[in-house]
Amino acid sequence: MSDLKLETANTIIETAFAKGAETGLKPLAVAVLDAGGHLVAFQRQDLSSLMRFQIAFGKAYGALALGMGTRAVDTMARERPHFMAALSDVAGGRLVPVPGGVLMRDGSGRLIGAVGVSGDTSDNDEAAAVAGIEAAGLVADGG
Amino acid sequence: MSDLKLETANTIIETAFAKGAETGLKPLAVAVLDAGGHLVAFQRQDLSSLMRFQIAFGKAYGALALGMGTRAVDTMARERPHFMAALSDVAGGRLVPVPGGVLMRDGSGRLIGAVGVSGDTSDNDEAAAVAGIEAAGLVADGG
Amino acid sequence: MSDLKLETANTIIETAFAKGAETGLKPLAVAVLDAGGHLVAFQRQDLSSLMRFQIAFGKAYGALALGMGTRAVDTMARERPHFMAALSDVAGGRLVPVPGGVLMRDGSGRLIGAVGVSGDTSDNDEAAAVAGIEAAGLVADGG
Amino acid sequence: MSDLKLETANTIIETAFAKGAETGLKPLAVAVLDAGGHLVAFQRQDLSSLMRFQIAFGKAYGALALGMGTRAVDTMARERPHFMAALSDVAGGRLVPVPGGVLMRDGSGRLIGAVGVSGDTSDNDEAAAVAGIEAAGLVADGG
Repeated sequence: MSDLKLETANTIIETAFAKGAETGLKPLAVAVLDAGGHLVAFQRQDLSSLMRFQIAFGKAYGALALGMGTRAVDTMARERPHFMAALSDVAGGRLVPVPGGVLMRDGSGRLIGAVGVSGDTSDNDEAAAVAGIEAAGLVADGG
Repeated sequence: MSDLKLETANTIIETAFAKGAETGLKPLAVAVLDAGGHLVAFQRQDLSSLMRFQIAFGKAYGALALGMGTRAVDTMARERPHFMAALSDVAGGRLVPVPGGVLMRDGSGRLIGAVGVSGDTSDNDEAAAVAGIEAAGLVADGG
Repeated sequence: MSDLKLETANTIIETAFAKGAETGLKPLAVAVLDAGGHLVAFQRQDLSSLMRFQIAFGKAYGALALGMGTRAVDTMARERPHFMAALSDVAGGRLVPVPGGVLMRDGSGRLIGAVGVSGDTSDNDEAAAVAGIEAAGLVADGG
Repeated sequence: MSDLKLETANTIIETAFAKGAETGLKPLAVAVLDAGGHLVAFQRQDLSSLMRFQIAFGKAYGALALGMGTRAVDTMARERPHFMAALSDVAGGRLVPVPGGVLMRDGSGRLIGAVGVSGDTSDNDEAAAVAGIEAAGLVADGG
């Protein structure tokens, strides 16, 4: 079963929203997945557009699927777009290869899950994800 | 944009979990969707099995897709299994036709969204959904 | 190119809605497809549930796909559910095997398209489709 | 339930067709979606090619999915093609990222839905969508 507690996931989401409020970001959506790629918690702020869940989920899923934050996935997609197009199909349309998907590990390096944020620029989305992960006492990998 | 606020969705989830704790239910997963069928918030309690998100989502989505709580959808599925099988394909595998998906309306009867709960028996899942909806000052339709 | 004029399709939809109003039906959705299975016109009355387009389309598409009204498709589905389950997959989830999908032909028997109606009981949906087809000077086949 | 009335959707379609006739455009297809991305009305003029529904729908859906008119989506797709390719997969092939998909809001800024037009050049398609939205007393956003 998952090493990621619901309480941890909720802390991550609250902190990501606080970071967004503090830095004046647009409405955010935050998805927290366990190491198996399964959704533990999600929240979407008011006035979000309708595909925000899929995009936030897809960033977190993409990070887990390829074992790297989506900033690195983005670089890979630009260098080898045909590879990313195929991976997107392989994943059944669940990969979103732009920054904002960040892996999280515990102090010993063990993979705990991933966070995906969508709503503002990809860079700001990623900063909100990292803030959430750190507030939960975990280490952000790939943000 | 959605008439369903994130704050309302969070109240629903917290109350459904409180109902589960109070009545000794197994770990629950609760999905709250707006009237357009889009996810606003989801939480899965620790020790849930891995497909809980899809099941909770599918109950709420099924209620919205067919305009009735999934208790009525369940009856329809028993009477006309070939119709439900086709609807499941039409919906891309997003309909779960057992109790636990409940529509929610405001005082004037306006549809606000739906709640789907999964984790315990279908009857108990439904009771948790109804408790959440009522705690948010909304009317449960089809639970 | 299609033998089905937009003007004809609009007459069919208006008449189906008039039939619904006259006989006190719930809000209806009506899809009109040409003989190639492509959508010419669709309208959904206010307060329809969210999957009405897919259901109305799927009835019309099912009639065209199998060359018979969906009343006959429904019978086939009850007799051979495994066949219908496979056809649903073959069609990519676009077949809805319950009454309400009716073929339309001109006076010489030439296939012009199909109409799918959803919103009330399957029998009432079908009656609205037939009314629309006849008002357009065409022959309802399979309703 | 949807804030978009069928009557409003029909006004939009009629006006878009009138705009097309007035400016000598090719046959148009017009899809009107509510804020949840669900089809309210569609009409395709005679002599349209066979995929016009999917294209018109996809422009409107793309605008809603990403919260911006498809003119802006088009720009994003040119700048980050790997992101658009992934979003297309995430959306199950329902996004069409070229001009002609326009959001519509009421006077208070509330999102009411989106219009997608296809048939002539993307610029002319967009102008027809904007004409329809304005004739319905709504505000075109992103056209």
